[in-house]
Amino acid sequence: MSSSWGHNIKISIFGESHGKAIGVVVDGLPAGLPVNENFINFHMQRRAPGRGIYSTKRVESDIPDIQSGVLNGYTTGAPICAIIKNSDNHSRDYNNLLTSPRPGHSDYTAFIRYEGQNDVRGGGHFSGRLTAPMVFAGSLCRLFLEEKGIIIGGHLSEVAGIQDSPFDAVNINEELLHTIARKEFPVIDDLIGRDMLQKIGEAVDDMDSVGGVVECAVTGLKAGLGNPMFDSIESVFSSILFSVPAVKGVEFGKGFDASRLKGSQHNDPFYMEDGICKTTTNHAGGILGGISTGMPVIVRTAFKPTASIYKKQQTINLETKENTEIQIKGRHDPCVAVRAVPVVESACAIALTDIILSTPKNGGLL
Amino acid sequence: MSSSWGHNIKISIFGESHGKAIGVVVDGLPAGLPVNENFINFHMQRRAPGRGIYSTKRVESDIPDIQSGVLNGYTTGAPICAIIKNSDNHSRDYNNLLTSPRPGHSDYTAFIRYEGQNDVRGGGHFSGRLTAPMVFAGSLCRLFLEEKGIIIGGHLSEVAGIQDSPFDAVNINEELLHTIARKEFPVIDDLIGRDMLQKIGEAVDDMDSVGGVVECAVTGLKAGLGNPMFDSIESVFSSILFSVPAVKGVEFGKGFDASRLKGSQHNDPFYMEDGICKTTTNHAGGILGGISTGMPVIVRTAFKPTASIYKKQQTINLETKENTEIQIKGRHDPCVAVRAVPVVESACAIALTDIILSTPKNGGLL
Amino acid sequence: MSSSWGHNIKISIFGESHGKAIGVVVDGLPAGLPVNENFINFHMQRRAPGRGIYSTKRVESDIPDIQSGVLNGYTTGAPICAIIKNSDNHSRDYNNLLTSPRPGHSDYTAFIRYEGQNDVRGGGHFSGRLTAPMVFAGSLCRLFLEEKGIIIGGHLSEVAGIQDSPFDAVNINEELLHTIARKEFPVIDDLIGRDMLQKIGEAVDDMDSVGGVVECAVTGLKAGLGNPMFDSIESVFSSILFSVPAVKGVEFGKGFDASRLKGSQHNDPFYMEDGICKTTTNHAGGILGGISTGMPVIVRTAFKPTASIYKKQQTINLETKENTEIQIKGRHDPCVAVRAVPVVESACAIALTDIILSTPKNGGLL
Amino acid sequence: MSSSWGHNIKISIFGESHGKAIGVVVDGLPAGLPVNENFINFHMQRRAPGRGIYSTKRVESDIPDIQSGVLNGYTTGAPICAIIKNSDNHSRDYNNLLTSPRPGHSDYTAFIRYEGQNDVRGGGHFSGRLTAPMVFAGSLCRLFLEEKGIIIGGHLSEVAGIQDSPFDAVNINEELLHTIARKEFPVIDDLIGRDMLQKIGEAVDDMDSVGGVVECAVTGLKAGLGNPMFDSIESVFSSILFSVPAVKGVEFGKGFDASRLKGSQHNDPFYMEDGICKTTTNHAGGILGGISTGMPVIVRTAFKPTASIYKKQQTINLETKENTEIQIKGRHDPCVAVRAVPVVESACAIALTDIILSTPKNGGLL
Repeated sequence: MSSSWGHNIKISIFGESHGKAIGVVVDGLPAGLPVNENFINFHMQRRAPGRGIYSTKRVESDIPDIQSGVLNGYTTGAPICAIIKNSDNHSRDYNNLLTSPRPGHSDYTAFIRYEGQNDVRGGGHFSGRLTAPMVFAGSLCRLFLEEKGIIIGGHLSEVAGIQDSPFDAVNINEELLHTIARKEFPVIDDLIGRDMLQKIGEAVDDMDSVGGVVECAVTGLKAGLGNPMFDSIESVFSSILFSVPAVKGVEFGKGFDASRLKGSQHNDPFYMEDGICKTTTNHAGGILGGISTGMPVIVRTAFKPTASIYKKQQTINLETKENTEIQIKGRHDPCVAVRAVPVVESACAIALTDIILSTPKNGGLL
Repeated sequence: MSSSWGHNIKISIFGESHGKAIGVVVDGLPAGLPVNENFINFHMQRRAPGRGIYSTKRVESDIPDIQSGVLNGYTTGAPICAIIKNSDNHSRDYNNLLTSPRPGHSDYTAFIRYEGQNDVRGGGHFSGRLTAPMVFAGSLCRLFLEEKGIIIGGHLSEVAGIQDSPFDAVNINEELLHTIARKEFPVIDDLIGRDMLQKIGEAVDDMDSVGGVVECAVTGLKAGLGNPMFDSIESVFSSILFSVPAVKGVEFGKGFDASRLKGSQHNDPFYMEDGICKTTTNHAGGILGGISTGMPVIVRTAFKPTASIYKKQQTINLETKENTEIQIKGRHDPCVAVRAVPVVESACAIALTDIILSTPKNGGLL
Repeated sequence: MSSSWGHNIKISIFGESHGKAIGVVVDGLPAGLPVNENFINFHMQRRAPGRGIYSTKRVESDIPDIQSGVLNGYTTGAPICAIIKNSDNHSRDYNNLLTSPRPGHSDYTAFIRYEGQNDVRGGGHFSGRLTAPMVFAGSLCRLFLEEKGIIIGGHLSEVAGIQDSPFDAVNINEELLHTIARKEFPVIDDLIGRDMLQKIGEAVDDMDSVGGVVECAVTGLKAGLGNPMFDSIESVFSSILFSVPAVKGVEFGKGFDASRLKGSQHNDPFYMEDGICKTTTNHAGGILGGISTGMPVIVRTAFKPTASIYKKQQTINLETKENTEIQIKGRHDPCVAVRAVPVVESACAIALTDIILSTPKNGGLL
Repeated sequence: MSSSWGHNIKISIFGESHGKAIGVVVDGLPAGLPVNENFINFHMQRRAPGRGIYSTKRVESDIPDIQSGVLNGYTTGAPICAIIKNSDNHSRDYNNLLTSPRPGHSDYTAFIRYEGQNDVRGGGHFSGRLTAPMVFAGSLCRLFLEEKGIIIGGHLSEVAGIQDSPFDAVNINEELLHTIARKEFPVIDDLIGRDMLQKIGEAVDDMDSVGGVVECAVTGLKAGLGNPMFDSIESVFSSILFSVPAVKGVEFGKGFDASRLKGSQHNDPFYMEDGICKTTTNHAGGILGGISTGMPVIVRTAFKPTASIYKKQQTINLETKENTEIQIKGRHDPCVAVRAVPVVESACAIALTDIILSTPKNGGLL
């Protein structure tokens, strides 16, 4: 029980960072969906390593090789499996991890959980590399959602404490979402982005790392999707967002700041516009009682700073059970939040697809 | 698909705020667990309404009536169903909601989702009252966990922006957790609690409401429980925490603040103490790679201010589809976060029980 | 993990034969379904004990007390919980079972599985009495299905080796299904029914019991519901049918006899009639590749003879671990298959409801 | 929702008969299990096509290519994905199926279900070829089970109405199971096997096909595994067995014949032997109340005759909606039951692994 997710769409992710391949099976997408490979590869490349200063130097083409479920460019209704080969492994860099777990990383807990049998090279199945199949699955789901007029887009809302302009939660321009997706550094305000990049560069120079926050929006959702309690939009989204490595916080709408507002400030007044019920503000992030209001869904996801830094750190030796130090080799992003933007979007797309397929009469709603 | 949760322990919650009864079925607890009803009722009463200024004036005894699964004081291994009667309903107070949805509440989305068939009285199945069966189920799970030496406890870490002292994440005194549980107002620092109460009182006077944050800790967990990816401790905890009404954010360890730290600040150094691996700090909140480190698990949950306030608010008329105003009647907590402390603890207990029952060789680990 | 079932409709059954009550939570039925209580009670009474020679003498009114999810006669969309009180318990009759397990019954395996903590009185949670909540849940589902023109009906196709006339698999008269449902002894051919009753009477006289087979049909299904592989109609139906106590075999269409036919005999030729594709025979039982063909679904379920017979039998003493004999008291059906007809129908109704709710565009199909 | 199965072990099967590849992801096997590839390939070859008269002439090496989850010959605890290439496709042979569905096959129902988008070549995802990944997954599970002393083996108990000797349900010799597994034609009595083969040959000569029954046994199980109701051994086994193409019936122990016995004949008397509780007969097939008794589990699975026969058959034209005839090309087994023996064993192995991983304290039981 660990790497499979979903009720009416099911994804099963496999692979290890330095194994033969990584990949995913996506089960439950309706038949007849056009599989636009350019669209998928566009989002895969947004996540792929090897581009900017913020990225690991590992080079992977990350072209998914579809094994099943697609015929003549359309989904057949059968499960879709995609394989992504691992090619640029430097496994030797991880030899010292066999006995000395990296602080802040899963090495120690994986060692205990799997009794030392887990593949420690590159983080094994715990690696951020496993988000590549998530982007593949999410991109398929986005094709499904875009047919219904639903667009998902995110930006780096914060890096090292520097904040980008926030989304206008009431009125999100879809063109803005497309524009950000095409940027190499996914922020709304490029000047702020330059400051963020400088902070990342400083962290690289210091053999250190920085964290960040991704803000993601969903537009085009009609009201009435989701459920009270355990299958609330928040529950479903968060269960998959917290599976992304390095995520430590998830909030919707005003999130933690909502706890500092009064009800009279936080409540979004309803009004009618063109026969549709809207709210003048959108502090709720498009969700009330776990169900969509029809306003944009807004979710923010906090990423901790990359655990793998090159500074000398204190750790233990798992064999001798003595204290020791470690100096990490390998190639690592100094800020995982940057390449995480399409990952967060993909997680939201998968979550939302399941919610839509799970809502009776979803056809009527959309 | 909405009110059932879990893999190896399953809970199915039912009921509506002004219906005949609310309750829960808990399926999957091992046989032979002593069912300490005093323990259960103690936690039920911590959540029950009618106590302080922060609580609705509705009076409910909230004594669960166990229908099955317990014999001579021990679990039989069969599902445990408990019924909690609703007695103090003032349903007339909700008549105006049939056409005018309360801002910030689920009235509108429930109307769309259920095509006007949902029970709107008292919020129906969306009511915070549905957290009573969650506390029942969570208290059963706590009995299971305490047998393994695992203690769960929370406090109000923030109300209306006023912050209580935080838990010492490295070294949580179990006695402190028990002490807070016995307090009427569950904070660490009672002087700060007095300030919080004053803010709540001011909100009552203003016909308004305030939000808050609950910090919860789990102690006594050994390392190695949980999973990478979709069944990470964070994913499992958050999926149930976000099902609690009014929750808008969940974070673990340093959470959103982790995104503002450098890796060298955030990483928790490992060291050995008495043959056990520990960390000198616990910014990770006891979780690395989705798996327990053996340090306390720390989770914070943000509650928005109560949506039901007595101030006049702008809304729509669902029948005429015109703008209108609403003045809410009914009885409502001015700050739901206060009574939510045992609810959050219960949600964590249920989540953790499922994780333990789902981990092979869990007996070995615990 | 045991007494909860389903994906998009979920049922959670609880209770023990001699406990306070039994019942069920049904989660996932759409809002706005008229809850015809006469309809439900009609099917509850078909299953209820205390009628003919074939039934236990235990008297239970078996009137479900609905706690939630129904308002003004319609489903609200929230979970529906029904409680059925146990009133006529003779628990003393089971005292000897605490140490001496009944051959053919679950006493021994439950003792091992639950380490002696299970409620042995009346079979506890393993009792056939737990089929009453299944009939309640199934009757709700039948209301959902009948709105779509889908009718489910069964008959005793075999008792003690005596066979009733089979259903005409190609052309099932719905009126016939209603007629059988109203019969006290649910067979097509009443003369054969009389012979069956005589065999049951002889078994009673011999302090013995007999088995039987229930044949069930579903009419009004359109083609295209279900799935290949693990969510085939057969997989979903059988998973719930085999949860009915005493069931030892399930077959669809020609079933085991299909294995004795040639392909040229077994294949059902397709033809067009009034623009609809039909088959001239229906050996497939309305299912090809796990998906409905539009012809009636036919399923047969085999019940073993009641394990609880009054003859002296060889068993062991669980305390002394020595061989011993047992003479069973208590009140037991001499042929459980008779009262199982509405149970099988209910299981099929629940399974089919889940399949319909799980099929995208189910609205289009139906 | 269709091709994923399981709770604590999860398998996700993908692929289409004439697509690029088929395969499976197996998630949830404990870390540290030695992956004996010879063992896996031995069972893969028992199922592989191209051997006897009873098999399709399609030639596939069916060597699984493991992508993940295995390192240095041991499971890592991460999901295991295996790919099996399709090489010998004659897709042209299926061109006529695009408009004319084969009687008895899934062509018609798949066309309706997937709106004509499904891959019809070789049966697509509905093909019996998809049982190859099931054998891979099942063989992994058998390695897990054999470590616990649990052996699974089957034989052709019936072909075209000719019956092999049955298993001795009380006392199954494990050596017999191994012997049958090594036979080219998997029967207990080779003389009877010769008669079966002759019947199959006659069917080939007649451009026809025959059905059969596979009997499967599980030995070495201790008492106390499984659950009452929905996770009974019968429910879990049948849900996966009925997902194997062509299966129309499943029975446990005496199965349908149990319905023709009296209780005094069917009940298995308990007795003590060497401190262990046994039964003198095993009509229950090793299961009481859904839970293992410790006696061998016996399950029989009925396979219909192959739908694809070369005789001219009546069907419809999906485009013109007129009646027509079809003469099937392609290569097909004249009796799918023969190669299904290792498939049934694999399905049982997967089911049993999930049951064991789902039973608390399973370590104590085994």
